[in-house]
Amino acid sequence: MELSIIKIGGNIIDDENKLAAFLDAFAAVPGKKILVHGGGKLATNTAERLGIRQQLVDGRRITDAETLKIVTMVYAGTINKNIVAQLQARRCDAIGLSGADGNAILTHKRTHATTDYGFAGDVDSVNTSLLTSLLLLEKTLVFSPITHDGKGQLLNTNADTIAQELARGLSSTFEISLVYTFEKSGVLLDATDDSSVISRIGPGYYQELKDRKLIFAGMIPKLDNAFAALRSGVGKVIIGRAEELPLLLAGRAGTTIVHE
Amino acid sequence: MELSIIKIGGNIIDDENKLAAFLDAFAAVPGKKILVHGGGKLATNTAERLGIRQQLVDGRRITDAETLKIVTMVYAGTINKNIVAQLQARRCDAIGLSGADGNAILTHKRTHATTDYGFAGDVDSVNTSLLTSLLLLEKTLVFSPITHDGKGQLLNTNADTIAQELARGLSSTFEISLVYTFEKSGVLLDATDDSSVISRIGPGYYQELKDRKLIFAGMIPKLDNAFAALRSGVGKVIIGRAEELPLLLAGRAGTTIVHE
Repeated sequence: MELSIIKIGGNIIDDENKLAAFLDAFAAVPGKKILVHGGGKLATNTAERLGIRQQLVDGRRITDAETLKIVTMVYAGTINKNIVAQLQARRCDAIGLSGADGNAILTHKRTHATTDYGFAGDVDSVNTSLLTSLLLLEKTLVFSPITHDGKGQLLNTNADTIAQELARGLSSTFEISLVYTFEKSGVLLDATDDSSVISRIGPGYYQELKDRKLIFAGMIPKLDNAFAALRSGVGKVIIGRAEELPLLLAGRAGTTIVHE
Repeated sequence: MELSIIKIGGNIIDDENKLAAFLDAFAAVPGKKILVHGGGKLATNTAERLGIRQQLVDGRRITDAETLKIVTMVYAGTINKNIVAQLQARRCDAIGLSGADGNAILTHKRTHATTDYGFAGDVDSVNTSLLTSLLLLEKTLVFSPITHDGKGQLLNTNADTIAQELARGLSSTFEISLVYTFEKSGVLLDATDDSSVISRIGPGYYQELKDRKLIFAGMIPKLDNAFAALRSGVGKVIIGRAEELPLLLAGRAGTTIVHE
């Protein structure tokens, strides 16, 4: 049984028109599907309006206690419920979930000898039994990147990681296409040239590009996640523009990450 | 099959210790169950911190566009996900829902010739098929009072009404105990005397008390909802303190509303 898992980020979530167009395309994707959304400017704006200063360590936002409250409100509340309502309006029977709901994604608070990452959750397990049941009820799942530790603590988890872990967890039951959307047309040879998309990339070619410093830094975590997903049994990972979703799924746009 | 539907309000949600004690008791309730939560001070506080002025008409808060954003964040985000995480910690397999999720509760925007109620949703239908499926999967459902109109618009619905409509919708499948908790021990003959609880009340006695102005005003919408629920097939409606949940369910505290 085929399952599409699609991750969208702030560039789509922050733009009402882009989001509406994406949801049109997403609702039209045939078969079983999961949408994973990240945050976007709304969390930053809400934090600013509430006078909460964002802590940054090495350019990374730290999820302190106040920031956790903000991302829980904005990601699991505002963004998740608005996407669900908009999908319902498109006759796509969506149900919004955090990792706490039905114990869907269990994580633990990241610990590190020298850096305090705050309330960041690293994934322990995915409740594939619940997710399979919901997918078999013909529900489309919409995940916010808020998880829990099973002890009552909500945690903030990277949305790319959530998408990857869902794909990994469900890969024994479903034939999965995992799509990471972002603001570029795919993996680019030249970060400034949107037409330099690599249409297929395997681990060997990836290593070569990394060695020659031809992959721009922002792509590396995304590709590392993609290869990790492939190694864990996911059939296909695709990276490209959310605006091109149907073409991405048809293999006619973006970058497809393959075993070799 | 028995199903307990329990509504809690701000007096429990706003107090961390009371909420924890209530969730201990709720998690221990045997069998299938649904928790419906309202808001509380957190929504008002968040609105204040964001500099959003609350519009009141006849002492009622109006859900304008900005207030809708707040209640969506706070009710469906913060409160719902925290309750779910805390129930999971108590080994109660909770899943949080708004009315938009799985089209669980479809509403329409209230219209009125002279008063603008803003984004207030009146219930059209409850998706009993979805809710029954989830209950049969042994999930405990936790509802925030955010609903949708099926056209992409989220709406704010009274939590008492949500509890009543869920009970009504599910009454053909389940034998329902509907519990409204509030800050009093039950329906009181004397509003200032917490020991004047009426342990049972039917429509005749209710009418008599209303005629003699012996029911204080705040109780009337609650009792009207309770009798409406009974008339629609709900087996039992109970009103009392959240702190006494096990006693309420056992019929040893609070007020039980009966057919006569």
